[in-house]
Amino acid sequence: MADGPAPKRRREEAEAAPGPAAPFPLGSVRLRRLLRDSAREKAAFVHGQVVGPSGEETDAVLILEKTPFQEEKIEELLRTHTGLELQMRNDIYSTAMPENPEIKATVVYPATEKHLQKYLRQEVHLIRETWEDYKSITLPFIQSQSFSIQWVYNILEKKAEADRIIHENPDPCNGFVLVPDLKWNQNQVCLLLLLLKGCCLLRGSTEEMSTFVSLIAC
Amino acid sequence: MADGPAPKRRREEAEAAPGPAAPFPLGSVRLRRLLRDSAREKAAFVHGQVVGPSGEETDAVLILEKTPFQEEKIEELLRTHTGLELQMRNDIYSTAMPENPEIKATVVYPATEKHLQKYLRQEVHLIRETWEDYKSITLPFIQSQSFSIQWVYNILEKKAEADRIIHENPDPCNGFVLVPDLKWNQNQVCLLLLLLKGCCLLRGSTEEMSTFVSLIAC
Repeated sequence: MADGPAPKRRREEAEAAPGPAAPFPLGSVRLRRLLRDSAREKAAFVHGQVVGPSGEETDAVLILEKTPFQEEKIEELLRTHTGLELQMRNDIYSTAMPENPEIKATVVYPATEKHLQKYLRQEVHLIRETWEDYKSITLPFIQSQSFSIQWVYNILEKKAEADRIIHENPDPCNGFVLVPDLKWNQNQVCLLLLLLKGCCLLRGSTEEMSTFVSLIAC
Repeated sequence: MADGPAPKRRREEAEAAPGPAAPFPLGSVRLRRLLRDSAREKAAFVHGQVVGPSGEETDAVLILEKTPFQEEKIEELLRTHTGLELQMRNDIYSTAMPENPEIKATVVYPATEKHLQKYLRQEVHLIRETWEDYKSITLPFIQSQSFSIQWVYNILEKKAEADRIIHENPDPCNGFVLVPDLKWNQNQVCLLLLLLKGCCLLRGSTEEMSTFVSLIAC
């Protein structure tokens, strides 16, 4: 409601009003179609129709959303769902489905202090940065914060995720390997993230190895 | 992984690597703290520690995420969770918790064709728009798409959401009513959306009534 168009005056709106509200009978709703879903926000927007006693159909929109985690219940969640079914593992990163099919878990283990800092809630500031600031402050910080990319070498050397390779180009310099990203939820093609991992470095080229992420849009 | 800092060469990274990967024993993890959570994405980033056989503690990051809805299971979901507990209702909008505590539902009923269009998956285009285009094409379209704001009058006239009013300023011209937005999930203060509804129009002023949304940041 709040992000809809700007409100207008009441008298101009009267004819557009969809009539008085009625209680919503979920039990008698017929699913017409999925209007849209958001795998990122775990929400689905559904067009339904409610069939009245004399057979007339009335449209409804149902916005279904998974509920967020509650901090005080996370400990209990970890204690009760100990049966993790490992889906994929590469270096310190793994994805797993707990017994509870409502939850997906990604694990970084063992984690360094830098990993903890990466996921910690951060305060956001707006700053004005000169080229000198970037060179003398920002760039050294970025370099000091970078993570091990052993997981990339594991893919290129087929030590991990070999069964997930979608495409491989063996060209000595421009070759690359295409694999689904860890963030992909394994069943929604709309959110298929692909990692393109160049292999120049391994093959002795002087060029930097590069990693790209592409999103397959529907 | 993919949105981390740019990859560096392997030899510079060797000393930062956190050692060989080990299977993750969720059963023996101790919750240290919640690093961050995202109510919008239904995700929680947790700092845990795994206690080894000789008592040594190893850090881990657990990223817990609710799983997205699967289109083919929505019909079954509607059929099996018919017991909606109504939380709030105003005009055609209502929020409800199904029996399943993992799901929150927002219902628009009865819905017009404009509501269906609002929630339908849209293709996104980038266009260059002149002031003339805005006046002759965009503005008439926005005006034709606007929704009834009966729900705003229901709040101002205390016909709905009267028990949710957080603050009311009765000033004849600058008065306003402050209520939580429908999008608020009722338990996370970090995501408390507030609607500020000016009451000039109702009190006979010539000024337009305005609606603002504020987000209480943590």
